Amino acid sequence: MADQYAHSGEDKRPTETPAIRWEEPPEGPVLVLLDQTRLPAEEMELVCTDASALVEAIRSLAVRGAPLLGIAGAYGVALAAVRGFDVDEAAAALAGARPTAVNLAVGVRRALGAYRAALAEGGDGRRAAEAALAAARALHREDAEASARMAGHGLALLDELLPAGGHRVLTHCNTGALVSGGEGTAFAVALAAHRAGRLRRLWVDETRPLLQGARLTAYEAARSGMAYTLLTDNAAGSLFAAGEVDAVLIGADRIAADGSVANKVGSYPLAVLARYHHVPFIVVAPVTTVDPDTPDGASIEVEQRAGHEVTEITAPQASVAGAGGGIAVAPLGTQAYNPAFDVTPPELVTAIVTEEGVVSPVTSEALAELCARARRTTAR
Amino acid sequence: MADQYAHSGEDKRPTETPAIRWEEPPEGPVLVLLDQTRLPAEEMELVCTDASALVEAIRSLAVRGAPLLGIAGAYGVALAAVRGFDVDEAAAALAGARPTAVNLAVGVRRALGAYRAALAEGGDGRRAAEAALAAARALHREDAEASARMAGHGLALLDELLPAGGHRVLTHCNTGALVSGGEGTAFAVALAAHRAGRLRRLWVDETRPLLQGARLTAYEAARSGMAYTLLTDNAAGSLFAAGEVDAVLIGADRIAADGSVANKVGSYPLAVLARYHHVPFIVVAPVTTVDPDTPDGASIEVEQRAGHEVTEITAPQASVAGAGGGIAVAPLGTQAYNPAFDVTPPELVTAIVTEEGVVSPVTSEALAELCARARRTTAR
Repeated sequence: MADQYAHSGEDKRPTETPAIRWEEPPEGPVLVLLDQTRLPAEEMELVCTDASALVEAIRSLAVRGAPLLGIAGAYGVALAAVRGFDVDEAAAALAGARPTAVNLAVGVRRALGAYRAALAEGGDGRRAAEAALAAARALHREDAEASARMAGHGLALLDELLPAGGHRVLTHCNTGALVSGGEGTAFAVALAAHRAGRLRRLWVDETRPLLQGARLTAYEAARSGMAYTLLTDNAAGSLFAAGEVDAVLIGADRIAADGSVANKVGSYPLAVLARYHHVPFIVVAPVTTVDPDTPDGASIEVEQRAGHEVTEITAPQASVAGAGGGIAVAPLGTQAYNPAFDVTPPELVTAIVTEEGVVSPVTSEALAELCARARRTTAR
Repeated sequence: MADQYAHSGEDKRPTETPAIRWEEPPEGPVLVLLDQTRLPAEEMELVCTDASALVEAIRSLAVRGAPLLGIAGAYGVALAAVRGFDVDEAAAALAGARPTAVNLAVGVRRALGAYRAALAEGGDGRRAAEAALAAARALHREDAEASARMAGHGLALLDELLPAGGHRVLTHCNTGALVSGGEGTAFAVALAAHRAGRLRRLWVDETRPLLQGARLTAYEAARSGMAYTLLTDNAAGSLFAAGEVDAVLIGADRIAADGSVANKVGSYPLAVLARYHHVPFIVVAPVTTVDPDTPDGASIEVEQRAGHEVTEITAPQASVAGAGGGIAVAPLGTQAYNPAFDVTPPELVTAIVTEEGVVSPVTSEALAELCARARRTTAR
């Protein structure tokens, strides 16, 4: 990782370290990421000076989460442009760094589109680079605004579905400020409920194999002063059976045109449990997560990740290293099945909450209408 | 752990290290356990010279699994008797070491009953101790025989339910020779299918928080030459959705009179997934697991274990120690919900396979009839 080096963030208070920021000269132009693989043990920043360093950060999950990947992709194109690298090559590498999150490709396309449009209008390389950076910044800002709107729509929906209040919400993976230009997706809704005094408890699935729930969501919940409890993914069933879950709130990495939702592996079992226990299963995601070019769940390409994420345990402070850098927990030579995502069919999704409003029940028609409305809003 | 010390088993081939053995003088009388917390990294034996060392081994899960706990409990009573300790006190401590597995208390009662009967018949302490040891040995032998019979009944059931053959079986936690006087419960059925050339694949849930699937079932599957694949508990849903699971085979720690099954946490979500996907969910357990004194699922006491099993990761070779001896993965002060078991209601259980035959559909009447038959068999 020649162009990606660690930069200690020790002098900053936790809440002041953003998940992503663009740094201008004299320190930049560089893209600075909070290295999420090291949380919650330490807050380290990764400084990317070119797109290939960013591709590596995306693959290693130092930067992750659908909306943030879109922002990172856009800044990555701007970085290549500003520093005079081959912009098309950088864009292709970035868009293909991870296959499932549609936002990544969308973010890359947006900055690339702005870059090309500036060139087509007769601008020089500097002008085009500025256009790409402006597009990335706009996406970043819009994502923060979208977060706030999703939180509002999501809280209103929770209050409507659960008029008794005192919401006990189960969440999976990590969907807060660490994945967003703002306060996130599903987590932003829980945070809004917390601020309104209507969140009784946030149940946090640890989210194997990479423990984003234990490492990241617990960290964000603790920082926000929420009442939260961590559990193994296995223990969610016991909570449902005990009537301790009022709603499930998750994010999404890609939503097909028919409303099928690809999200972190383990989401689909929660949807089945929620259905069995008559508990609302709510997906919170920006409209950019909806991909009209993916007709249905079967068409979603699910990333298969390396087996060592399962056969070895990797923790931030681990000093004993196996082949994958972690501690071996399974016998040598054990083969593992390790899909990063699973797909929940629309009939198990109570509602999809976006910045443009709520879709419920989830149908292709309602989703198409929402996307059309979003395009009109953007075009204004 | 004054009376429990580690004893290296390095000079033995893996398959030769039994999960439990009674050692006579000159080395004994002692009870020697394979320390399951150190598998698969190393095969270490724990030598227990009194019941309190055994209680600690049970609590720390060095010895675990419902049938094996029964055998261990019986040997523990014999150990106290042979060595001249207070037998009633030892029996009470052993029976209460873990609350959910009924076999533990049953095994303790059996050896204690033999001990008391010998005393009542005018025998001296030595004679009574011999009776307790004979009872423990009989239980050990019967468990091995029960294992073989469960395997036979279970394989016949699989072949009947899945006439196409090439069974792809999903299992959870660890139910093989490490939990049994023989080849185990659910695992013994998979092993029988493997030997008969009818097991296409064993899907092994890693089984958080203690990873008994990754550490122990993968170890047993590898030793047996089975085609097996490890997965996070979260990924089971994707396998069901892809039609890759033909049957679920699990063990049980306690079966209530109504057929409710307490087993390792994560079993209930599998039962719900199996139902949703019309896949048979089969419980394999000896008749001693059925507890007629527990009327239903709600009456089963579920052991709540320490939160650090979730907030920290413990691996055999881990050298970085947190409060619980593991590597912290969640922020300091994170509260965790950590039930050791969950309860699956009878309506989600396709069949209960015991050494006395198969109960399907699972009803209180059929279970009561089975238990009565088992009592008649024992009385013969």
